[in-house]
Formats: sequence, C-alpha cells, structure tokens
Amino acid sequence: MAKTRIGVIGGGQLARMMVVPAIELGLEIKVFAETEDSSAKVATTMVGDYTNIDSIAAFADTVDVITFDHEHVPLAVLLELEARGVSVQPPSRALEFAQNKLQMRKRLGELGLPMPVWAEIRTAAELEEFLVDNGGVCILKTPIGGYDGKGVRVVRNIDDASDWLSAEGLASVGGSLLAEEKVDFVRELAQLSARRPSGDFKVWPLVQTTQKGGVCAEVICPAPNTSVATFAHAAQIARDVAEGIGVTGVLAVEMFETQTGRLLINELAMRPHNSGHFSIEGSATSQFEQHLRAVLDLPLGSTESRAGNSVMVNLLGVDDKNDFVSGLGSVLNSHPQAKVHTYGKSPRKGRKMGHITVVSDDLEFAMAESHATAAALLDA
Amino acid sequence: MAKTRIGVIGGGQLARMMVVPAIELGLEIKVFAETEDSSAKVATTMVGDYTNIDSIAAFADTVDVITFDHEHVPLAVLLELEARGVSVQPPSRALEFAQNKLQMRKRLGELGLPMPVWAEIRTAAELEEFLVDNGGVCILKTPIGGYDGKGVRVVRNIDDASDWLSAEGLASVGGSLLAEEKVDFVRELAQLSARRPSGDFKVWPLVQTTQKGGVCAEVICPAPNTSVATFAHAAQIARDVAEGIGVTGVLAVEMFETQTGRLLINELAMRPHNSGHFSIEGSATSQFEQHLRAVLDLPLGSTESRAGNSVMVNLLGVDDKNDFVSGLGSVLNSHPQAKVHTYGKSPRKGRKMGHITVVSDDLEFAMAESHATAAALLDA
Repeated sequence: MAKTRIGVIGGGQLARMMVVPAIELGLEIKVFAETEDSSAKVATTMVGDYTNIDSIAAFADTVDVITFDHEHVPLAVLLELEARGVSVQPPSRALEFAQNKLQMRKRLGELGLPMPVWAEIRTAAELEEFLVDNGGVCILKTPIGGYDGKGVRVVRNIDDASDWLSAEGLASVGGSLLAEEKVDFVRELAQLSARRPSGDFKVWPLVQTTQKGGVCAEVICPAPNTSVATFAHAAQIARDVAEGIGVTGVLAVEMFETQTGRLLINELAMRPHNSGHFSIEGSATSQFEQHLRAVLDLPLGSTESRAGNSVMVNLLGVDDKNDFVSGLGSVLNSHPQAKVHTYGKSPRKGRKMGHITVVSDDLEFAMAESHATAAALLDA
Repeated sequence: MAKTRIGVIGGGQLARMMVVPAIELGLEIKVFAETEDSSAKVATTMVGDYTNIDSIAAFADTVDVITFDHEHVPLAVLLELEARGVSVQPPSRALEFAQNKLQMRKRLGELGLPMPVWAEIRTAAELEEFLVDNGGVCILKTPIGGYDGKGVRVVRNIDDASDWLSAEGLASVGGSLLAEEKVDFVRELAQLSARRPSGDFKVWPLVQTTQKGGVCAEVICPAPNTSVATFAHAAQIARDVAEGIGVTGVLAVEMFETQTGRLLINELAMRPHNSGHFSIEGSATSQFEQHLRAVLDLPLGSTESRAGNSVMVNLLGVDDKNDFVSGLGSVLNSHPQAKVHTYGKSPRKGRKMGHITVVSDDLEFAMAESHATAAALLDA
C-alpha cells in the first residue's frame, strides 16, 4: 500500500501552503499546530506542544510520514520517533545540522564545501582573536534558536557580545557561539532543491534574494546576470549538501556571491523556504508539492520554469490592523497579473503576512508589478 | 469591511478545488456538505440537507456570500435566502435557468441566442410531430434533475419515451419534457467565462471538449483549428448569456459546432465546470480562483494562457478499488510534466475520481502525455 498520509509539525504558512498540493494530488495531510487558530488551521487535526513526545507520537500514529513547518522540534523527540519506527523526513541526522549552526559549519567543513571563515567562540579572548584575524568585524550567531535575523549580530568589539558571552548567555545557547567573517558580498543567492529518501535529486533555477533587516524581502528567479557556470556550481553545492548530510524533502541553501564570483554557503533550511515561494506559479512543480512528493518518496516533478522570470515580494505586517485581505478589491483591479497570497494570520508589525508573485517573460514588468502590488496592499 | 467569507453549498470536487485559491488568497471558505466524508471535507463546517431552509440559513449566517458546488438547491430555498438578505451568487433569477432546461430554452429564445430547434413536449402526439419535423430523431431531456448524461435520451419513436410520457413520469419532472433536434455537429466546444455582480466580465479561450457516454472525457485549450471569428463569436455568446440571464461567478456555455460553422448552445453550467479544469495550470487565473473573486465581487484576474496549449483528461472510476492515488509512485516517474488531480472520493465505476492536465507549447506532446498518464493511472 502506497504511503499517502503526511503529518506536518507546525502550523505556520509553510504548512498552510503544503495543504494546497495535498488537496490537488489527493494526498491526506494533517497538521500538528501550537494553537487552534494557526495559519494552517484548515488541516489541523491536533493542537499541542511539539516538544512533548507523547503528543507527537500520538499524532505520528495517524499518518505515514512526519515532516515539518519549522526546525524547532527537539532532537530527542525526533530520535525517539525514529526509534519507534516513524518515518521522519528529513531525518534527525540531517535536521541536527539545521538546528545547530555550529554543527552545520563543522559538517560542511568535513564535506569540503565553500563557506565564510568561521570559528567556535567560547570566550571573549577567542572572539577578540577572531576579530583581529578578520578585519575587526564579524557576524556572531547563536548556534541554536535563531531565525529571520534573530540570534545574529554584527560585532566589532567584545563589548557588543558581552551578554551572549556571559555564563548565563552561553548556557542558554549550548555553551558556545559561532563567529563568521563578514563577507563583502555583491549579492545573496539561494539554491532550492529536493531529494527523495531513495536518492532522486532535483534543483530549481538559482534565485537572487534581497533581505531587509534579516528578513527575505524579494526573490528573483532565475538570478539575473548569472553565468551558466554559476548556475551549475550552485546546483552542485546543493547536491553535495543534500547528499552529504542526508537531507530529504526540500532544501534551501542560502549563499553569498563575492566580488570575485565565489559562492559561500550562508544558511541551510531543510523545508520549503521563503526563497522558493515563486515556484507556486513560476515552476511546473511548486516547492510545496515537491516537498510532499519527496517526503513520501514519490517521484519528483519537473522544475521547469513556466515563464522567463518570476519575482516574489514579501508582505510584512505594518501594524495590527492591515491583514492585506480587506484591501484586495481596490488592488486586484489595477494589478490583474499579480498573484496575491495571504496567510490568514493576525496582523502584527514585521510579521510575514503574505507574498506577491508575478510571472512574466518580461523581468522589468515582473519587478515593477510585484512591487507596485505590494505597495498598493500596504496602503489599502 | 470587505466581504471575504465564502459559503459553498455542496461538498463535491468543485467545492474541494475552490478551497485551494481560498487558502492562497487568504479568503475564508466554508462548505455545507451532504456527508461527513465528502470530497471537500477539509473545509466542511456543516453537514446537512441542502433542501432544508433552516439548515442552509444557519450556514449562511456564518459567511458573507453563498455559492454552489452544484445546481440542485431548490429555488424556494434560494428565494427564501435572498428574502432574508443573504447574498446568493449566482442569484436565484439566474439559477432557475440552470435548474430547468425548458425555462433555459425559452429564455435563450427571448434573448435571440443560437441553439438547436426545440419544443416543449407534453404528449406523445407532440413528440411524434417533433420527430416528423426533425428527421425522425431527437434528443429528449427531462427539464430538471439531469446531469452527466442522466435525464437525456436519443429518441426515434414515441415508445422510446413511453415511461417519461406517462402521467407519473411527467409529474416527476414538472409536467413536460424538452425535445431538441439531434444536431449533426462536427465537434463540441465550451466557452468558460466569469462575471461579477457589478458587471465585469472575462472569458478564457474557447475550448474543445470530447464527451464519452455523456461525461466529459477530454478538453483542449484553446480549441484547435479555430478561426479568430469563432473565438470572438463564442465569447460574445457567453457574454450575452451571462448578461441576459444575470449570471454571476463562473459560467460554462457548452456548444455544438455544425458542419457550416454555426455555434449552437447545448447546456449551461453556472459554476466552475469540468471544461475549465485546465485553467488551474493553464491560465494565469484558474476558474476556481475566478469564481471566488467573482462571487465576492472582487476584481477578476487575468485569463491569459500560461503556455500554448493545455490538455485535460478526466479520470473516471474503473472499479471500487483504484483510487488513482496508490499508483502515483510508478506513474509520476514516467510522466514528470503531468499534473495529477484526485478528488479524495471512494472509487466507483464511472465516477469522476480526478483529472490530469498537461500544459505545453507543443499540442501533440500535451495530448500524448495527458492520455498516457491517465492510461498509466488506470492500470496502476
């Protein structure tokens, strides 16, 4: 009997967007959410605490495979699920590297993959030494718990990190910090890919991403002004990461491109990712459909582009009133080509509330139209 | 405050497919289904009898607009809802023509629209006369209750219709039958369109449909070998119907094309329709998204094609075992371009279980690939 029942831990917008291809393909999807009123409530069958093994195990009993909306389920819970025979995709041996940036750097180093200069930091002296060796500035990260710009700081002297370096601070993040060189990049790129447990691997075209305040603001697919060699190199890096670490499902590899054209791995996400939302309209197979196929070990779909370019712009909350839905009437009228996605979340400043995608053979049009639609919805 | 909550009466695959754009746009959708385990169960908030005004009114209280998965809600219920101030889209004054084919023919006649020769039949003598006048053969229809080939017969003499013409038979269908000339058509076409209550109207490209046993089997968009004049004429017919009858939401006009190139209206459907499933992948805006936009009186989206051609093939149940899902693993592997949709229904011979769409600039490829995928799923 084929495996067709997917259980997603976490009720955010990624789980919500996985519901769509489940409906289309006729796969059963269930969501384990933290609250009744989550973004993925339409498919929520259980509400509880994802750190509680009994709750998670009861949920796992109702599906064929467990996958994730986020990377925060404790490793101990994942290991216990696997010990009980549950199919966890991606598996714990991959997810541990998504959960701990220091472990990730060590593993990428073993795999010989390109990344910024880095060091494990346990003391102010070690941080001081790293700063001296790297031009007086570095990116300091907490190895666990960070996302969307949280747990990341630009540090120019040890005082900038005195709280993190205190005994208390260190204890709360596992005993050490991760320092990385501040890369003088010309732009940021992301390579989206998917891999099945049985080995098939596919990439989408490399995309260019723009961050604002540590949060993804804009994605262009394919990355403009990019050589064939760079597309191929980025795809190879993603394959090396996926195979080297044993990732299954969708993997996003965020990278810096340096002035000399080097690609350096910044972050990894082992799940559908903001840099891949363009694929809903822009690709023959969306990252959400591909993720479901991959975690069920079904054949992967075509990642061919549906048009020359896709531009995705995030809708970030401006206040606690604008839900980006009430204003649709006035906005859709002037922007019939824009695909508006909203996530059913209560408005809050800075929150990811939705996104816009415009697909077109004309990149300038796609850029202008996606930003104009987002701007109009901000004002609506 | 913008209207954003849609209530759908009926839990079939059309309601199921409306859930997808509701999730994407962030609109709230609720389904009133006949059973707990319907195709649209993911969005079902109430289960009951759609002929019961109290149940339907209670459901309507939870949404901003009522629309439909099917056309079987009694006119009396629709009128009562409207009398209570509920926004019913399409409204009763349009739906009465979808519910009664005899009323539809009369109304189309008043609007001067092209259709087969027809007559209202109350007696065997009237049927006899119609047969004599129309070459000894006609299509006899029950004015109410028919769909997917049910309630339709090819009749060559009055004995073929003696049951329908009995006092009992006539009483069960409203007192009379509808006879239509058997059109010697070269092919069948369908014009999909959408209209907002405030008047905006958009068409998709005219499609060619192939029926097997009265059930839609294949749809090609755009209709091959079709003149610009025919595309324009079909679009005009749809506009005349929508505006003449006051249809809101999606309208499908099924037509015959005769040897001399005439277009004759066969059937009307005032909801998303099997002939429009191609639009999920084939159009910038799917018929399901457009229907939600239209019934909420939001601006309509672009109906531009995403590629040269789309071919849709229905998956009809072969037995009570093949759900077209268990075999996905072997089939998707050899058909990475095919988009497989299944409806989460229990398998039954002849039941609409799902469909396949292939979108491509190469029509031959799209034809071959869609049929090959369907054939493989039938065998899987």
